[in-house]
Amino acid sequence: MRILGIDPGMAIVGYCVLDYDQDSDDRPYKIVNCGSIQTCKNSENPKRLLEIHDDLVYLVEKYRPEAAAVEQLFYFKNAKTVMSVSEARGVILMALEKLNIPIFEYTPLVVKQTVTGYGRACKADVRDMVRVLFSGQDFPRLDDTSDAVAIAVCHTNIANK
Amino acid sequence: MRILGIDPGMAIVGYCVLDYDQDSDDRPYKIVNCGSIQTCKNSENPKRLLEIHDDLVYLVEKYRPEAAAVEQLFYFKNAKTVMSVSEARGVILMALEKLNIPIFEYTPLVVKQTVTGYGRACKADVRDMVRVLFSGQDFPRLDDTSDAVAIAVCHTNIANK
Repeated sequence: MRILGIDPGMAIVGYCVLDYDQDSDDRPYKIVNCGSIQTCKNSENPKRLLEIHDDLVYLVEKYRPEAAAVEQLFYFKNAKTVMSVSEARGVILMALEKLNIPIFEYTPLVVKQTVTGYGRACKADVRDMVRVLFSGQDFPRLDDTSDAVAIAVCHTNIANK
Repeated sequence: MRILGIDPGMAIVGYCVLDYDQDSDDRPYKIVNCGSIQTCKNSENPKRLLEIHDDLVYLVEKYRPEAAAVEQLFYFKNAKTVMSVSEARGVILMALEKLNIPIFEYTPLVVKQTVTGYGRACKADVRDMVRVLFSGQDFPRLDDTSDAVAIAVCHTNIANK
């Protein structure tokens, strides 16, 4: 099963292409690629949204995931952040739908609960758990990227229960 | 000058294609088309966002506006509404950018101020003012449609100052 994990944002969209094989003799998880789409903060939002769209389409066409796991917004204190992250999420969801990729959405709480066993885990806990799961493999340096790995892992765990 | 006015939403996207000719012997404004993109409330959001995208692309390719005027979110009490309207806005802004349509964004306050002279006008005031401006022409029945007309009028007023 190949999953595309996505942590949406206007400045940075973390992504992870994850292969999961529960019958593997070795580790069941393998990171095929992970990284982030980063948009220029000096650009207007429509231009940034188009960059996100085009880069995401490129990733999906290149890696052909069977499903996408996308982080849901749960709670933000800053209304401006809610708006811009939601705009990016809208573009991501629409692009995945157009490409016929089944979409699964998870709140940060569910992702943290599934991956670390603790729903209120901080970003560092998630990163440390991702490090343990994938020790020896190329390690994502950005928080947004390790969040995307966590979202993909979360989906495989829930989908294979 | 042909303007596409857009009032974004997840359930209803109001639109208005407005021709403006300040040298016209008759009225300077003419509604070429107006209406709304309505998405099925029983559908998942990605499907609704794709409907919005595809219908908007169709409208732009059919009417070839020189610019688009899109309502900005200003303030909402309900976080869920902020998120879904922003998702729709993201798709709309991205699609317009991809089609190379210059985008102008206006808050509801500026639209109301420009069209009715009063920033705190209610939806009925905006509808009544639109009725007066376009008396004799096909009249938009939905609030969202008359909002889209008001946004297009707002842009022509500001752009031609």
